Amino acid sequence: MSDLPKKSSPLVADWQTLERVFIRPEDESSKESLVKYMEQILFGLHEFLNKHVGVTEEISLVKLADNYKDTIINREPQKKLEHVIKDIIEEIAPRAVNVASPYFVGHMTSAIPFFMVHLKAITAALNQNLIKLETSKVLSLLEKQVLAKIHRQIYQNDKHFYEEHVQNTKTTLGVFTTGGTTANLTALWVARNSLFPPKEDFGGIEHAGFFEAMGAYDTDRVVVLVSKRGHYSLKKAGGILGIGNNNVIPIDVDDTRRIDLIKLKNRIAELNNDKRTKIAALIGIAGATETGIIDPLPELAAICQENNIHFHVDAAWGGPVLMSEKYSHLLAGIEKADSITIDCHKQFYMPMTSGMVYFKDPTAMDQVAYHAQYVNRQGSVDLGIKSLEGSREANSLILDSALKIMGTRGYSLMIEHGIEIAKQFASMIKERPLFQLISEPQLNILTYRIVPLNLRQQLENADSIQRVELDSQISEINTKLQRIQREAGKSFVSRTRLRVRPGDSHNAIVLRSVIMNPLTTTEILEEILNEQENILLFC
Amino acid sequence: MSDLPKKSSPLVADWQTLERVFIRPEDESSKESLVKYMEQILFGLHEFLNKHVGVTEEISLVKLADNYKDTIINREPQKKLEHVIKDIIEEIAPRAVNVASPYFVGHMTSAIPFFMVHLKAITAALNQNLIKLETSKVLSLLEKQVLAKIHRQIYQNDKHFYEEHVQNTKTTLGVFTTGGTTANLTALWVARNSLFPPKEDFGGIEHAGFFEAMGAYDTDRVVVLVSKRGHYSLKKAGGILGIGNNNVIPIDVDDTRRIDLIKLKNRIAELNNDKRTKIAALIGIAGATETGIIDPLPELAAICQENNIHFHVDAAWGGPVLMSEKYSHLLAGIEKADSITIDCHKQFYMPMTSGMVYFKDPTAMDQVAYHAQYVNRQGSVDLGIKSLEGSREANSLILDSALKIMGTRGYSLMIEHGIEIAKQFASMIKERPLFQLISEPQLNILTYRIVPLNLRQQLENADSIQRVELDSQISEINTKLQRIQREAGKSFVSRTRLRVRPGDSHNAIVLRSVIMNPLTTTEILEEILNEQENILLFC
Repeated sequence: MSDLPKKSSPLVADWQTLERVFIRPEDESSKESLVKYMEQILFGLHEFLNKHVGVTEEISLVKLADNYKDTIINREPQKKLEHVIKDIIEEIAPRAVNVASPYFVGHMTSAIPFFMVHLKAITAALNQNLIKLETSKVLSLLEKQVLAKIHRQIYQNDKHFYEEHVQNTKTTLGVFTTGGTTANLTALWVARNSLFPPKEDFGGIEHAGFFEAMGAYDTDRVVVLVSKRGHYSLKKAGGILGIGNNNVIPIDVDDTRRIDLIKLKNRIAELNNDKRTKIAALIGIAGATETGIIDPLPELAAICQENNIHFHVDAAWGGPVLMSEKYSHLLAGIEKADSITIDCHKQFYMPMTSGMVYFKDPTAMDQVAYHAQYVNRQGSVDLGIKSLEGSREANSLILDSALKIMGTRGYSLMIEHGIEIAKQFASMIKERPLFQLISEPQLNILTYRIVPLNLRQQLENADSIQRVELDSQISEINTKLQRIQREAGKSFVSRTRLRVRPGDSHNAIVLRSVIMNPLTTTEILEEILNEQENILLFC
Repeated sequence: MSDLPKKSSPLVADWQTLERVFIRPEDESSKESLVKYMEQILFGLHEFLNKHVGVTEEISLVKLADNYKDTIINREPQKKLEHVIKDIIEEIAPRAVNVASPYFVGHMTSAIPFFMVHLKAITAALNQNLIKLETSKVLSLLEKQVLAKIHRQIYQNDKHFYEEHVQNTKTTLGVFTTGGTTANLTALWVARNSLFPPKEDFGGIEHAGFFEAMGAYDTDRVVVLVSKRGHYSLKKAGGILGIGNNNVIPIDVDDTRRIDLIKLKNRIAELNNDKRTKIAALIGIAGATETGIIDPLPELAAICQENNIHFHVDAAWGGPVLMSEKYSHLLAGIEKADSITIDCHKQFYMPMTSGMVYFKDPTAMDQVAYHAQYVNRQGSVDLGIKSLEGSREANSLILDSALKIMGTRGYSLMIEHGIEIAKQFASMIKERPLFQLISEPQLNILTYRIVPLNLRQQLENADSIQRVELDSQISEINTKLQRIQREAGKSFVSRTRLRVRPGDSHNAIVLRSVIMNPLTTTEILEEILNEQENILLFC
């Protein structure tokens, strides 16, 4: 910019100030303020969040929305960086949600180690684009290595397998995605394409489209099977891929809230009878979003093998449990999956947003390879050849660094803490007469509800029709309770709809708790239950 | 964690150290080192990158790959954060690509203002998840506001329109995506679904799938039209959506390298003749990846209106040109688009990765709404209801902050600089006897090639068959030259394949330059051409 005319002017109105703003803080006093802010954020993250962010905040959404209605972008700059950051801290943060609070046990978004913010900042500073080697170089190699590390943790193939594939430019053990949704979409995309490969005059479904594929393979219908607890992204993937979300068939769950194997087998037999229907994939859940339940993976693997069906495991939540020597057995069978989704921003404790999908067969992703002339040239190391997303940041650098800082042992300390505190929480709930545990925590998620004593007595003597009515009343109470607790702003559990008893044909509203914050203690959970008992007086 | 037993041990081997690692640096000396690193990154970003990152580096990829082959994750922690960051600076950064160098003019990844790293760090620290209000609260409101601001900049509807929609929980002016690829995919997803809505016994294509949709609407084929310069993500979207990438039909370009309107109209007439074919969308490019060319948007809009076709504009690159009072006229007609893709990590100068897609009709995205019980409940403000992605970070906070710091004027200074320097670069190329300009820069992208004098003379007298042979020789030289320059590590231009002359039926390798770094001067571009002339001696 040095060859351009320079004028003096406030904020970014000309080249001179633009240069300053692009490269460094406007002046020394700005820098001093910024250093203070960034020091709080980088070295006192949890204190900073506790000080500046309420768990939630009582101001009504409608009122708050009034402050966010101006839709004109200023021509001239409005604020210096230091004032923008001051505003974020004073105006935005208090009205954001302190997902890092140990009292926030309602969703799969939680506290992250402070160092994740450092790693994210460095990744942003390097601003590599993993789509191609020419904008990432060593990061492409590192990403392949990290993918192989996690693949090995899951599939435990022998060292020769990993020596062959870790830096093999022709094969792919998995890809980083921007989250579990696109990871699931990628897995089902590969599964769909594997079912309709090129033959004779037909160029393959990816090339020729869905309609022609149906003709080439004498098919009318493609379906995907998953327990009714499957994440909604699976239905969405069915919609996007042309399968139809109605053809993502929910299979009922059994008394343990896992996929009902008898109903599943019957359904497969029915579908196999119709020669014009193909099953693209059967999905096992490893950590259901609502209940944390893990489907019987070895049995699902056997069914898939017998029927020649693509076996996908959605381990977006549960995947990192593999790092715990104590609990990895819960995921036994996952190594038989053709594809596996794992999120980084969940139990790998990374910041939003990052996911991964793995494939047993290192050539499986050839089904979805795309090339272009200026990027992703055939035979290159360009990782964008086989990824749904295009440009991608180097989230692999964050995961790799975190694994070095924590080791599998560090991660498993957090994961075991969650599982064990959740079990204690379940006991606490069972001990209190006002609460009813709905789903036992197999991992670190459980559901329960509050039931006023008079309704509890009525429930005990009710027939199935009366139970529907009583559950409806109790649902209203729990809905209101969840809202009041959230608005009170100290603690947060979420709510969802589930069958209260295995045999029910109706759903009820239940409270849902996800224990992933290592700072959440049983004392805190006692406080949350106490608060709920107090709120009940107002419901 | 305070209720758990504490032992003393190195790194993260027990709860005590885990607590420390989760919350703050291990000790004061670690903190001191970290403060120094982070100060370099946050307040001396460009010096840091220049000091630590080569543009590229000469070490061979095969040799480098040897260092990234270990595939076992350590059980115990290997390193403290400070050592991990030291390694990133000393081992990773030098072998990454300095996309921020003003000599790096080869791709759409470039320098970002230093403050973007601050904003990214704060966004990571708050770790809000925009999928739902319960994990984002005010950020959901802010995101809707930012979307309305950009929508207004594009479509310039009246203030009543924006008052109605800016915070309307039922309508959607656009969504943030993780990049241009998923933005284009989202737009075509909406277009596909709009073509096959529910009717009578048919539940709509999203619900019932592609095959049933074809039956319900007596259709055999769905196509998408775009110039042959369309980004490859459009073909990929065709593949994913079941349309078939072969049905994303490339239309030839005219002498100005824009979509050939005559050929387009003929193709549409042909397609309309076949009653069993439907056109899902016509795409106009606003800033082609390879040439920066903008298609004739008003003419394309008229064709779409006449034929009742969804008009999508892929302005992933060119969108922010709307902020320049001097050049926004180049995008005239974009306001007629049914949907528009714009990337944030390109000419909004944000870090990887963030994109957006906008819709003229605030109800268009109803076609792709998904709900779940625990999230995205019907009627809520949850932004995840209408987005392809699930969990999403608050990139809208970064864009909003940047707009406040820069104003449209700050952005347009950078955009105008790019366009004007590119025009000067084109003149410089034309003045040098060894170079041939291939595509004139309409925006800030141009292509050219080096042609040795003897081959230039032969070309002048060659017939069309001889030209194929000569172009092939010249392509080899340019391929080699681009590689040598990249490996020399000082500067970087990319290469692609294009027709050298409008009438050619063959492609040739050309050099491609993207001028988006405000620190790239004409002096630097002279140096790059000088270096290329020197390299020619070795080709």
